[in-house]
Amino acid sequence: MSTLETRIQQVEDRLALQDLIHSYCIHIDEAKSVDAIVDCFVEDAVLDLSGLGLPVVTGRNDIREFFVSVLAATECNAHYSTNFRINRLEGNEAECQSYVYAVGVAKDGSDILVHAKHQYHCLRTKKGWKIRHFSEPYLVPPTKEIPNFE
Amino acid sequence: MSTLETRIQQVEDRLALQDLIHSYCIHIDEAKSVDAIVDCFVEDAVLDLSGLGLPVVTGRNDIREFFVSVLAATECNAHYSTNFRINRLEGNEAECQSYVYAVGVAKDGSDILVHAKHQYHCLRTKKGWKIRHFSEPYLVPPTKEIPNFE
Amino acid sequence: MSTLETRIQQVEDRLALQDLIHSYCIHIDEAKSVDAIVDCFVEDAVLDLSGLGLPVVTGRNDIREFFVSVLAATECNAHYSTNFRINRLEGNEAECQSYVYAVGVAKDGSDILVHAKHQYHCLRTKKGWKIRHFSEPYLVPPTKEIPNFE
Repeated sequence: MSTLETRIQQVEDRLALQDLIHSYCIHIDEAKSVDAIVDCFVEDAVLDLSGLGLPVVTGRNDIREFFVSVLAATECNAHYSTNFRINRLEGNEAECQSYVYAVGVAKDGSDILVHAKHQYHCLRTKKGWKIRHFSEPYLVPPTKEIPNFE
Repeated sequence: MSTLETRIQQVEDRLALQDLIHSYCIHIDEAKSVDAIVDCFVEDAVLDLSGLGLPVVTGRNDIREFFVSVLAATECNAHYSTNFRINRLEGNEAECQSYVYAVGVAKDGSDILVHAKHQYHCLRTKKGWKIRHFSEPYLVPPTKEIPNFE
Repeated sequence: MSTLETRIQQVEDRLALQDLIHSYCIHIDEAKSVDAIVDCFVEDAVLDLSGLGLPVVTGRNDIREFFVSVLAATECNAHYSTNFRINRLEGNEAECQSYVYAVGVAKDGSDILVHAKHQYHCLRTKKGWKIRHFSEPYLVPPTKEIPNFE
């Protein structure tokens, strides 16, 4: 009995962790609620976007501020999330990764085109899985990407 | 016991609902059977593609006619489906969404490139989950998309 | 009881088969270990890339050799895997498919851009699901693809 429960729990965790990264992407693209984006993170989370040449932001307050500026600078965005994988799942901790293909338009009219990887360390909280540490290295660096011809 | 059964049922429903949108995309891209596409919908389904500047089609007969014309106008197509999410799942009804990145070539030689969202209200039928209402708003509108240079 | 077990087993198999194709893609893109790529296949596996105008390779040794040359010729790569579907799952055999959107840069500086389908026949082994036969037909042939303008 407990074995079946353990197995279904593991499946549920996997799907919840995949939902978490989908939520992160969808909330950014909907651009309706910064709170919804921030709610993907634990209080003292680290959002490390140095892999994209962007800042390392620590704590929900600064993460909120960061996304306010991101949304203000973005006209529209689509973060396609694929290749989800759990690298480690032990108790209340999980290390996951997925691919992201981000395409959009900045407020200044320039195109957004990113081929990168989402790496996220998650914690199980009373409100479900949340991101503790997030980083985003390039899969295909932009200087090597298909040119935008602008 | 019934709790475990409920949990596994929920997982199966989720995977079946994801399979449904994959089937819809794959059948369009295979372009081998309009019936297979139409079979994703219930009899009185609404296919609302007004978000793409296309018609709103009601009922399987008109949906079949619509896809006959779509397939006739298309040389090849790939509907990449990602970011699946269930927004509501209650009993025999479900509201889901996913992202679609569609790329292809029309019979007239022009490129197809769409960054949009699939929103689908589904019903559980004796033959599995089927789409009751389908709509497809843009994530990145085509006027704002990476230019096709045509 | 056994019914619940069968159902959870089916879900686990599905997720494991999806993990397998994700691993294949991720290991190619990481380009860190040819062994990790080769480990996705059974000993006498057939890797049929004739759909892409590439060779048909048989057996782990030749598959290893093939990927050594692929990695040597590639600067960076991202294989986005979507639209996973099991076409048949019986006992220790499974036939699966998924879409792949591959983007990257070759060592000679030329762009890589592929819209194709992964079709893989898998076997359950003591070390988990492995690929027995793999083929990759185009979804959108390159001559019809969005031009690279090079």
